[in-house]
Amino acid sequence: MRLAVIPGDGIGPEVVTEALKVLGEVAPSAEITNYDLGAARWHATGELLPESVLSELRQHDAILLGAVGDPTVPSGILERGLLLRLRFELDHHVNLRPARLYPGVRGPLAEPGEVDMVVVREGTEGPYAGNGGLLRKDTEHEIATEVSVNTAFGVRRVVTDAFQRAQARPRRHLTLVHKTNVLEYAGSLWSRIVEEVSLEHPDVTVAYSHVDAATIHLVTDPSRFDVMVTDNLFGDIITDLAAAVTGGIGLAASGNLDITRRNPSMFEPVHGSAPDIAGQNQADPTAAVLSVSLLLDHLGQKEAARRIEASVAFDLATRDQSSPGTTQAIGDRLAALVSSNARPVA
Amino acid sequence: MRLAVIPGDGIGPEVVTEALKVLGEVAPSAEITNYDLGAARWHATGELLPESVLSELRQHDAILLGAVGDPTVPSGILERGLLLRLRFELDHHVNLRPARLYPGVRGPLAEPGEVDMVVVREGTEGPYAGNGGLLRKDTEHEIATEVSVNTAFGVRRVVTDAFQRAQARPRRHLTLVHKTNVLEYAGSLWSRIVEEVSLEHPDVTVAYSHVDAATIHLVTDPSRFDVMVTDNLFGDIITDLAAAVTGGIGLAASGNLDITRRNPSMFEPVHGSAPDIAGQNQADPTAAVLSVSLLLDHLGQKEAARRIEASVAFDLATRDQSSPGTTQAIGDRLAALVSSNARPVA
Ligand SMILES: CC(C)[C@H](C(=O)O)[C@@H](O)C(=O)O
Ligand SMILES: CC(C)[C@H](C(=O)O)[C@@H](O)C(=O)O
Repeated sequence: MRLAVIPGDGIGPEVVTEALKVLGEVAPSAEITNYDLGAARWHATGELLPESVLSELRQHDAILLGAVGDPTVPSGILERGLLLRLRFELDHHVNLRPARLYPGVRGPLAEPGEVDMVVVREGTEGPYAGNGGLLRKDTEHEIATEVSVNTAFGVRRVVTDAFQRAQARPRRHLTLVHKTNVLEYAGSLWSRIVEEVSLEHPDVTVAYSHVDAATIHLVTDPSRFDVMVTDNLFGDIITDLAAAVTGGIGLAASGNLDITRRNPSMFEPVHGSAPDIAGQNQADPTAAVLSVSLLLDHLGQKEAARRIEASVAFDLATRDQSSPGTTQAIGDRLAALVSSNARPVA
Repeated sequence: MRLAVIPGDGIGPEVVTEALKVLGEVAPSAEITNYDLGAARWHATGELLPESVLSELRQHDAILLGAVGDPTVPSGILERGLLLRLRFELDHHVNLRPARLYPGVRGPLAEPGEVDMVVVREGTEGPYAGNGGLLRKDTEHEIATEVSVNTAFGVRRVVTDAFQRAQARPRRHLTLVHKTNVLEYAGSLWSRIVEEVSLEHPDVTVAYSHVDAATIHLVTDPSRFDVMVTDNLFGDIITDLAAAVTGGIGLAASGNLDITRRNPSMFEPVHGSAPDIAGQNQADPTAAVLSVSLLLDHLGQKEAARRIEASVAFDLATRDQSSPGTTQAIGDRLAALVSSNARPVA
């Protein structure tokens, strides 16, 4: 396995170190190459993602990314120039974000019920297309536009993927999240394609929720959701909320998948670079470790993936929630659990 | 006071009846005209908002709206053709949505803390502009676009209003909610205008939150927010979430304000028409009653507005949360409290 690693900014390097420690237990022969993309490189050279690095990245089986973003860099530069550029260049059209409330984890809800959902977020178009502009900047007549671009091609492939995932899950339920009553055109395209693809999956039940109502349900009745499929921006919003509901972004993993496998997929914790706690051995590396589990699963190493997730579940069920330990201590514990092949709890 | 009332669909007429009952206690001489806009009229005549009705509505001091939307009407028809059309035609640029966790109310959060915020949502542009289209419909090359339109004029007036509200509140804190790291152009305009207007309000502290992070904070630490200002779509999403956090949309009131007072402002509960419980005397009219309080406040009847809000607070603190009573019973209770001039609790 050839793995490219982008530790990135803030807590990125710390959590990636632990994630690789855990990976080492199941895939000791993985060939790992580090790429120093992020704030430091941008400051030193002005580079965000040079073409040569992009070509090298393409030669790998997968990419593990820590976090991107730094207070010394103007907002958006690293996000658009590095993170989003990677997602777009590598055609990461399925942004996969599971949200599971593990036994033992206390989230913010008084009565969460059982939560085990996966959000399939479109990753290469929508309001993230970068289309738009400013007219008459800095005058009182200034206009700023942002164009959400949605293609039948782009919507169909992500909706198809979501139905396949729903089909393979016990509940076989899929919810389209959009705002069809206001966003008439994009809403129409998404609705028609969900209807079309649903015909090929007669045993998947289909629901629809406006994005505003979905946020209500995520805090009042999250167990109603199984697979959610949605556009890039709605997916950004509801996956942060889903992560919060299931115990926080310290636990939320994600995969940016090119399901055609023409390009390497990229795995990253949902959390950001958290500059306020960077370098303090305080960040929870669990989300990065779970991202390694998603990575292995994507590469067909199902047993290793399952073993890591089971170890995380065991650790979450048994750790002291109010002081789970340092970044390194959590990593050590998870690595030990994985190596001892711990069984999942419950 | 000349008041236009649009009971609308589903539970709209029921909650409006109770809201008017309460209004009658403080403004018995209000002149009320009913307008039968909504699903029934559309079915009967195909009309959504005839020009003649729109002109009549303009002759009023304010509008009270129940709810719009019906399962027998294709999604979006009533929302865009009636509700959004009213907001746009009447230039309701400040969509005001307070979210307060009243004593006695149990929301979904285990430890909500004190929540008392107000969201100032832009109401006449952004992704709601209706700009966009379909190209190559029903082919595999179909493209759907949605254009978010943001003008300096439109952003400045709503940001100015939000700063003025923040200035008048004890905490004097304002949070801009956007997604500036991705939506570069709109994000730039919003950020620059907030910075500009903040110079005129040096005693208001200003924070910024990405919309995804804001949803996390709304469930993990909602008391951090005082005034939030945001665009039309982000405002739609976070106000539903804020309503859920503070006990549900059964309690959430809103005002669609033309702060220039060239057009009548419109007041409505945040909830929808809830067709599943329509006509069953089950809907909680509290949000509609609180909308009347916002209406009176907007018309300068501060004392009457305060009296209604205090009565609601008293009822919420003393009602049986698990069975608050029928629509009518709650309305009767609130009307009696208002007429007896109940004092606020705590
Ligand atoms: C950092 C930002 C560009 C990114 C996004 O908006 O996709 C992040 O919020 C995420 O969800 O991965
Ligand atoms: C019904 C719908 C068009 C409306 C909106 O999106 O503004 C509603 O959700 C609201 O928040 O008032």
